[in-house]
Amino acid sequence: MATGKGQLPTMHPVTGFKLGIASAGIKTPSRKDLLVMEIAEGSTAAGLFTQNAFCAAPVIVAKQHLASHTPKYLIVNTGNANAGTGEQGINDALQSCEALAAATSASKEQILPFSTGVIGEPLPMDRLLSGIPAAVAALSDNNWPDAAEAILTTDTRAKGASLQYGANSAASNSDSITITGISKGSGMIKPNMATMLAYVATDAAVDAELLHRALRLANEKSFNRITVDSDTSTNDAVILVATGTSGVTIDEESFDQFVAQLKIIFIDLAQAIIRDGEGAGKFVSVIVESAADTDEALAVAYTIAESPLVKTALAASDPNWGRILAAIGRAGVKNLDVNALQLHLNGVLIAENGAKASSYSEEAGQAAMQPEDIEIRVSLNRGQATETVWTTDLTYEYVRINAEYRT
Amino acid sequence: MATGKGQLPTMHPVTGFKLGIASAGIKTPSRKDLLVMEIAEGSTAAGLFTQNAFCAAPVIVAKQHLASHTPKYLIVNTGNANAGTGEQGINDALQSCEALAAATSASKEQILPFSTGVIGEPLPMDRLLSGIPAAVAALSDNNWPDAAEAILTTDTRAKGASLQYGANSAASNSDSITITGISKGSGMIKPNMATMLAYVATDAAVDAELLHRALRLANEKSFNRITVDSDTSTNDAVILVATGTSGVTIDEESFDQFVAQLKIIFIDLAQAIIRDGEGAGKFVSVIVESAADTDEALAVAYTIAESPLVKTALAASDPNWGRILAAIGRAGVKNLDVNALQLHLNGVLIAENGAKASSYSEEAGQAAMQPEDIEIRVSLNRGQATETVWTTDLTYEYVRINAEYRT
Repeated sequence: MATGKGQLPTMHPVTGFKLGIASAGIKTPSRKDLLVMEIAEGSTAAGLFTQNAFCAAPVIVAKQHLASHTPKYLIVNTGNANAGTGEQGINDALQSCEALAAATSASKEQILPFSTGVIGEPLPMDRLLSGIPAAVAALSDNNWPDAAEAILTTDTRAKGASLQYGANSAASNSDSITITGISKGSGMIKPNMATMLAYVATDAAVDAELLHRALRLANEKSFNRITVDSDTSTNDAVILVATGTSGVTIDEESFDQFVAQLKIIFIDLAQAIIRDGEGAGKFVSVIVESAADTDEALAVAYTIAESPLVKTALAASDPNWGRILAAIGRAGVKNLDVNALQLHLNGVLIAENGAKASSYSEEAGQAAMQPEDIEIRVSLNRGQATETVWTTDLTYEYVRINAEYRT
Repeated sequence: MATGKGQLPTMHPVTGFKLGIASAGIKTPSRKDLLVMEIAEGSTAAGLFTQNAFCAAPVIVAKQHLASHTPKYLIVNTGNANAGTGEQGINDALQSCEALAAATSASKEQILPFSTGVIGEPLPMDRLLSGIPAAVAALSDNNWPDAAEAILTTDTRAKGASLQYGANSAASNSDSITITGISKGSGMIKPNMATMLAYVATDAAVDAELLHRALRLANEKSFNRITVDSDTSTNDAVILVATGTSGVTIDEESFDQFVAQLKIIFIDLAQAIIRDGEGAGKFVSVIVESAADTDEALAVAYTIAESPLVKTALAASDPNWGRILAAIGRAGVKNLDVNALQLHLNGVLIAENGAKASSYSEEAGQAAMQPEDIEIRVSLNRGQATETVWTTDLTYEYVRINAEYRT
């Protein structure tokens, strides 16, 4: 199950950023499961990683390498997360870097490793290493669609976003900037400073400090605003690369415009994860407005988005506003006046004054809940802050997938 | 679905505490749905109520009445929670008190009202009021089993606990104390200072301040240690009454023994809610030991107990320790050394040193997960605190119940 159309858009190549895919047979024979990405000399890169204390071996290694070197290659395997693998896991991640370094002109510290898949099994190193030459040989800037497929696990579809914009008000072809990215993830999704995996490249020239700021800003309103099941993964990572090959340099003046465009890509990629959330029958936007501050808006939005009772009601297209109000009530908002808030479901006023709205009819509520896309809008009427979180419903299919995965 | 045997034990009467049941047809014709309890003159009472800001009308009224008066009657209806009902809800709760006051010798402030059931529908006052005379006429101290049934909603079984103990080391019949109680609840269960509904009475004489202290102590380690679905109800309440009819007075010296016995009853009643949790196929004890402090132990225990990925793995009897470690890792424990912890499932060492234990075999893990009762034991090895939380697995049946309830 998944929501929306889910086709990849036209994936514009980013000059200076190449992708090579191979089938290494890591978990399933002959599926694409190994991705190598090459970053041209002179690029900058920024990364954000999971905050989970139990983070995977490749996350530990990638953070160390990124702290001291500008990466030349990224290597990603699917089918195995190399998490919960102790000292052996670190050695395996380092060995992947060494093997790719040997196959190219890089040092192992210029390589960032990533893994996604089952937790707690050792990486099948023989198979992984044997796939590297084919992935390197396939490097091309046209491979974004295949790369989007190669990083999937329980995902049912590839996820990508791409755009081009004129960096000056009078844009010509020669000063247009491309931003293209891919993401993966559908379960264990509540990113905390990162997502399962996302790789975004631009041909703008952006110095390293500015690129990191742009990444934080875009990430905060995209991957940090989604939850499928409130479980933060051990392997979350998002990487942003700027190759500079467009010849257009982002400076303080053009920064806001760049971040705005970057956010479009990031939000597209984050929403694609929710649309493909495990067992998803609904795509749900939870908007909390007129909150006292951002923390309060997010607390209410996440409490609603993660409530099993709200999520099962969504699965049944049931306008069960009582469960939504109960979630708001336990979100920890100090001195909340429940009589002051309004609740809208897909534009229909459902509750106010602590009770069902007098204008509400069960028929209108039922009708509002039929679409695949649902907007839950809560107006707290106590301040100026607004935040949006995206989530899914909780279906039989979610239970089936997660009770059967691994067996 | 439910776990364990679920038969009521012998329910010892508590002299001075009477229960009367009626079928008022509030939601379903001819089922027991109205309970009146009478508290003898000279008793003391203590209560704890939901911390949900969106609390139900009867909770608001009961808190006010309990603050100013010692209650003489409790009135409970099932089938309708009188929550999300605004000003009308308050008036309805007060009207219930007035009607019961008129039918007895009490004032309305000596009556505490309670409701449980669907949120957001007005109480059917005609039916509720018409049931009061029959409930009053039926008052008897022998009605605990019927009372346990009369307060159920989606519960599949009645929940009760009862014991007698000698208040002196050389106990004779004449100085034995009885404690008997009932509870209800199976969904929207994560009590926060209270449970869905529980009523416990003792014939000990306990002054009001001491009784309140005893209630807090027993509640903290019972109803405040369970979660079915992390959703705190709008109607949670637990009431403890001491009639004093045994002639035995609890003082500072006998207090600890009394609390220890009270905890047995409270834990029994709390665990009965988990055993009857919506869709429950497993009864799960999450024990976190050698934590730095209580908050840390509880944070880890609840993060595990509420993780949808852990709960679906439990439903499949899958020893998916990777998901448990991932939950521990996101529980917000500062400077957690994941290599220092151990994880046992039903006594089998599963993980240590950040990875699968070398002694572990998949067969042993599978075997450990087969029983209905599962113990997840996490040793953080960084302090002295231990806490236990009880929960259920997450099954198809949970989704079915909550996607269909209300329709």
